[in-house]
Amino acid sequence: MTASNTRFANARLADGSLVDLTVADGRFSAIAPAGESAPAIETIDLGGQLTVPGFVEGHIHLDTSFHGDAWRPHIPCTAGFDVRERVAFQSRNLAAAAPMAVRAKNQLELCVAHGSLSMRSHVMVDGSVGLKHLEVILAVREAHRDLIDIQLVAFPQSGILSSLGTAELLEEALKLGCDLVGGLDPASFDRDVKGHLDVVFGLARKHGVGVDIHLHDGGTLGLFEIEEIAARTKADGMQGHVVVSHAYALGEFSGDALKKAGDMLAASGVAIMTNAPGNHAFPPVASLRQAGVTVFSGSDNIRDSWWPYGDGDMLNRANMIGYRSGFYEDHELDAAFDVVTHAGARALRLDNYGIGVGAAADFVTLGAQHVPEAVVAVPKARTVYRRGRAVARDGKLLG
Amino acid sequence: MTASNTRFANARLADGSLVDLTVADGRFSAIAPAGESAPAIETIDLGGQLTVPGFVEGHIHLDTSFHGDAWRPHIPCTAGFDVRERVAFQSRNLAAAAPMAVRAKNQLELCVAHGSLSMRSHVMVDGSVGLKHLEVILAVREAHRDLIDIQLVAFPQSGILSSLGTAELLEEALKLGCDLVGGLDPASFDRDVKGHLDVVFGLARKHGVGVDIHLHDGGTLGLFEIEEIAARTKADGMQGHVVVSHAYALGEFSGDALKKAGDMLAASGVAIMTNAPGNHAFPPVASLRQAGVTVFSGSDNIRDSWWPYGDGDMLNRANMIGYRSGFYEDHELDAAFDVVTHAGARALRLDNYGIGVGAAADFVTLGAQHVPEAVVAVPKARTVYRRGRAVARDGKLLG
Repeated sequence: MTASNTRFANARLADGSLVDLTVADGRFSAIAPAGESAPAIETIDLGGQLTVPGFVEGHIHLDTSFHGDAWRPHIPCTAGFDVRERVAFQSRNLAAAAPMAVRAKNQLELCVAHGSLSMRSHVMVDGSVGLKHLEVILAVREAHRDLIDIQLVAFPQSGILSSLGTAELLEEALKLGCDLVGGLDPASFDRDVKGHLDVVFGLARKHGVGVDIHLHDGGTLGLFEIEEIAARTKADGMQGHVVVSHAYALGEFSGDALKKAGDMLAASGVAIMTNAPGNHAFPPVASLRQAGVTVFSGSDNIRDSWWPYGDGDMLNRANMIGYRSGFYEDHELDAAFDVVTHAGARALRLDNYGIGVGAAADFVTLGAQHVPEAVVAVPKARTVYRRGRAVARDGKLLG
Repeated sequence: MTASNTRFANARLADGSLVDLTVADGRFSAIAPAGESAPAIETIDLGGQLTVPGFVEGHIHLDTSFHGDAWRPHIPCTAGFDVRERVAFQSRNLAAAAPMAVRAKNQLELCVAHGSLSMRSHVMVDGSVGLKHLEVILAVREAHRDLIDIQLVAFPQSGILSSLGTAELLEEALKLGCDLVGGLDPASFDRDVKGHLDVVFGLARKHGVGVDIHLHDGGTLGLFEIEEIAARTKADGMQGHVVVSHAYALGEFSGDALKKAGDMLAASGVAIMTNAPGNHAFPPVASLRQAGVTVFSGSDNIRDSWWPYGDGDMLNRANMIGYRSGFYEDHELDAAFDVVTHAGARALRLDNYGIGVGAAADFVTLGAQHVPEAVVAVPKARTVYRRGRAVARDGKLLG
C-alpha cells in the first residue's frame, strides 16, 4: 500500500453491485464488496452513486472548433454541399479566430468537464496548412497529458492525390507524433479509390500505425469503398487497427446487404464511428453490434465551420445514439452507453481501460441510479476523476 | 404605478436590443431602452442576459409519466408495435405506480423548472379509466394555477367508436373542464375515418372547443386523414382551432405532394405538432413553416410506458427540432426556437404571450448571448419568471 492510496467507498457499478474501489498511484489497486475493503490513507464515500469508466471521445477535431470563441454564423454552400467550398469557408473563419491553442484547450476542457478522459482527434494536414495545425495540437496534447489521453490522426482534409504534397506531409505528421493516418472519401474527393488507399495503407504499414478514414460517400459507392477498406485491412493483417468514420452508406442498406456488410466488417476487424447525425442516414448500431462490429462514437465537430452543434458530452451523445436508433429497452440503453465507453476503448485500443484492478483510475460518478437512467436523463450532476483525482464537477473543471 | 412594480434592467431581447422591462401586477407595464425606464419599487439587474418568453410545452401526457417514480423498464410489443397492447402495458404500469397526482406534479414541475409556463396536456379518457385520470389532472391543474397555464385535451386513448361509451365520456370531460376534444388515428384505430371525425368535430361544434388529434398513420392513409381533418376544419369555420399532433405522414412526402399538403394546411388553419422523433419520419418543419403552417412542439411522453426519453426541457426540444431538421444557419436556429415559443403560443391561442407591454410577465433568462447560441448550447443556466416572480433557477424550482 502506497502513501497515495485512496478508498472510494460505496460505488455502484453498472452491474448494480456496490463496491469499494481502492486507488493507488492512479490505478485501481483493489475492488471489494462495499464495507469489505482494507483501510486506506483517505476514504471518499461515493454514497452509492453510479460509477462508470471515463467516456471515450472517439472522433473530434481539436483544431477547428470555435467553442468559447466568438459566435460564427453558419453559411451554406452556394449550390449544395461541397467539401472544398466548406474548407475555404473554414480557412476564412480560422484566420479571424482566437489562437488555435486557446480554442483547442477550450474544447478539450469541455470534453473533460463532461467526463471524457480519452480522445481521438483528427488534425488537418494538407497543402494549404501543412503541419501548422499539427504542431499546435501536439503542444496542446503535451500540455494536457495529465488531464486526458489524446490520439491524433493525420487528417488529409483536402484529399491526398488532389492536394499536392499531402502524402509527404502525412508521413511527416506520423514522424512528428501522429498515432494514425487518416483518409477522406477516396472516391468522391480524390476520384481514385485504389490510389488513395495505396497511400493510406502504405503509410500505415511503413510506420506501424492505425488507420481512421472519413467516409461520407453514400449508397453503393460508399459500400464499395468500405469493402475495399475491409479487404485491405484483412490483407495487411491490420484487424482491430482500422476505423471507418461516419460510413453513412451503411445506413442506406438493410436485409441481406446489411448483413453481408456487417459480417465483412466483423471478419476484417474494421470498427465504425458514428455520431448519430440528426438528418442523415447513419450506420445501424444494433445490427452492426449484433454482427460483432465495434461501433463507437464521438462529438465530431463542435461549433465549427461545418455545423453549430456539439456539447462535448459523450453521455448526451449516448442519449442521441439511443434516440436516433429507437433504443427503448434497458439492454438497448446499455448498448448506447457501451458505444461511448467500452466499445470506444476497444476501437482506440486503450490499455488499462474500465473499472478493474490494474486499470487506470479514470472514472465518473453520475446522478443516476443505473446506466439506462443515465442515458435517458443525461444528468449534469457528475464528478470526473482522472487517475483517482477529482478534476471536474457538474460540467465544470475544478481549480 | 402600483406598489408591486419591479424593473428588470438590462434585458437582452431576441432582436439584440438591450431594454428595461417594468412589471406591475404580473404584466409588462413598460418596456424602454436600457437606462431610460422610470424608477420602480424594486430593480433587478439582468446584466444583459438573453431574455425570452416562457416556453410553450404544446403536447404532453401529465397522467402517464413515471418521472420521479420508480424506473419501469420498457418492454416491446410481442409482434411489432400495437397501440392496444401498449395501452394494456401502460395500465399494468400505472396500477403499480405512485399516485397520479404526485407523478403529474413531478412532471409539471420538471417542465416549469426548465422554463415552460404554458402547457397543453392530453388526458386519457376511455371505457377502462372513464374520467378518473381527468379528475386527478383537473385538481392538479387547479393546484398549480399560479405556476403554469394548462390546457387539457380529452384524449380517447382507446379509440372512440371501438371503445364503448367513449363519445359520451368525451362530452362529459368537456363539461368537467377540458379545453379541447382529442382523437386518435381514425383509420388504423377505429377503422372509420368519417365516423371518428363526426364525433370529434360534432363535440367541438357543440361545445365550442378546439380539436387536437393524435395521428400516427403514415403514407397516403395518413395524408388522406389530414386532408379530411383540414376539409372539416374549413367547413366548420374552425381555422386556428385545430391541431394534428405527430402527423408522421407529412414526413414521407416531398416535392409537389408536400407543397399541396402544406398549402392545404395553411389555408385551413390547421397547426402541426411534432416532437422531432429520433428514428421516424416527421413533418418537415422548414417547408411547412414556409407554406404558412403553424408548427409547434412538445415533449410528448416523458419517461412512461411508451418510451423512456424526455426531459421536459423545451429548449432542448428546440435543439432536437434543429438537429433533426438539419438547421445550421442562424435564421434556422431562430425558427427552431420559434417552434417552442411564439408558434406554440399561436397554436394554443395564448392571449398576452410574449415580451410586450400588456403581456403576462412570464419569461426566462438564459446563459447565452443570443437565440441561435441558446438553441445549440441548451444552457442549464437560466432563471424562470412567472408573472414577474422568479420560480426556478438552473433547472430547479425555487422554494
